[in-house]
Amino acid sequence: MASTDHTTQFERMGPEECLRLLEAEDVGRLAVIQGRVPVIFPVNYVLDGDSIVFRTAPGTKLAHGDGTLVAFEIDHLSREEREGWSVVVTGRLDEITPTGAELDRLGRLPLTPWAGGVRDHWMRLGLGLVTGRRIGRRSESTAAP
Amino acid sequence: MASTDHTTQFERMGPEECLRLLEAEDVGRLAVIQGRVPVIFPVNYVLDGDSIVFRTAPGTKLAHGDGTLVAFEIDHLSREEREGWSVVVTGRLDEITPTGAELDRLGRLPLTPWAGGVRDHWMRLGLGLVTGRRIGRRSESTAAP
Repeated sequence: MASTDHTTQFERMGPEECLRLLEAEDVGRLAVIQGRVPVIFPVNYVLDGDSIVFRTAPGTKLAHGDGTLVAFEIDHLSREEREGWSVVVTGRLDEITPTGAELDRLGRLPLTPWAGGVRDHWMRLGLGLVTGRRIGRRSESTAAP
Repeated sequence: MASTDHTTQFERMGPEECLRLLEAEDVGRLAVIQGRVPVIFPVNYVLDGDSIVFRTAPGTKLAHGDGTLVAFEIDHLSREEREGWSVVVTGRLDEITPTGAELDRLGRLPLTPWAGGVRDHWMRLGLGLVTGRRIGRRSESTAAP
């Protein structure tokens, strides 16, 4: 179910649509707080049940997930059409250390980082809060009386 | 000039290339800290000299810029090619209240938000730190000896 924010003319997307998009995409942007400054970077991910899973390299900002709250965004923004959508997940990020059958299961997920290098740290982001909105023409025509 | 991070296999882009991309694009993602949680959302923007300018609606999270440090990201991430790039600006965000000739000048910038609604708050993000990187195949082939 969708609704419209009449201040900004964004159409809010319902949770089912947001989850469908999170399942269909495979790259998003993670925002974490480093010191007192937000940092953004792209990550390849996979939706695994009620969490987002990705891998990261040792020595990066994310080598040690510790339950901190982060934001993760996927979007499709078409310059030609001047419209798009954006889905944001806010939740707790933890490093996980899967072993045995769970490691095998995660290893079979369709998760292949685009970049090379060693990425042997598994990270899990819980779907704490999922919000989505449509932006631009399609949203406005939907919002028209 | 570009260089490669051998841990993550990202190719770092030089400042000139980052600025060229910031000038060419017109939509990006802003990350701000709200409470102790990062928040991400898309914004239409224009590069105006040494800062990024955009407009926002009253009553939104950004109605009052106050010199806080934020991150702003643009990217192009191709699922088909499994490669892309990402440019991040970290800097100070302020609301500005242009008048007279400056308001006229800003009004002539190619800045037309996709979404409707009233967006009469002007925001300026200084290019404090600009970083960019290429991700995926092209980066890896460039990194090969």
